Amino acid sequence: MSELEIAMGMIIDVFARYAGTDGNAQSLSKGELKVLMEKELPGFLESGRDKETVDKLLKDLDANGDATVDFNEFIVFVAALTSACHKYFQQGGAK
Amino acid sequence: MSELEIAMGMIIDVFARYAGTDGNAQSLSKGELKVLMEKELPGFLESGRDKETVDKLLKDLDANGDATVDFNEFIVFVAALTSACHKYFQQGGAK
Repeated sequence: MSELEIAMGMIIDVFARYAGTDGNAQSLSKGELKVLMEKELPGFLESGRDKETVDKLLKDLDANGDATVDFNEFIVFVAALTSACHKYFQQGGAK
Repeated sequence: MSELEIAMGMIIDVFARYAGTDGNAQSLSKGELKVLMEKELPGFLESGRDKETVDKLLKDLDANGDATVDFNEFIVFVAALTSACHKYFQQGGAK
């Protein structure tokens, strides 16, 4: 497998690992999203235990309003975050 | 680094590796896109040497019409492809 294929597989794998913890394995509940953020993106939430921050993130990501985050909603978030990281590194490199 | 952070870094790395080959390192020219597709996603193009297919893909991805694929255009493509893979695996798993 190529590096890009491996990276894509890892994103699918991360989602499945956390979404499969309780109830519907096809989407992240609020609790699952909170654990995913704490474990996978510890720097993203200012405080991983801040319930309001996770509530706000869930609301932002939940495009179809079902109070969970499905894979399509998750990948849009990962893409936006990767784009922000890329921009950050570009700016750092240009200095 | 977490698995998700590593995957995001790998996507940034893949883009940078191919975009840096000629001219503007911030975007993929048609030639760079062709090499990236052949090396990283060999199964995506029916024939990696089919110029028309690469032309069509470039046109599809090039949202801002500058005849190159920048990182934001690339990550939208990777996200769509990852989502399609996820759907495929889900359907396979449900059989």
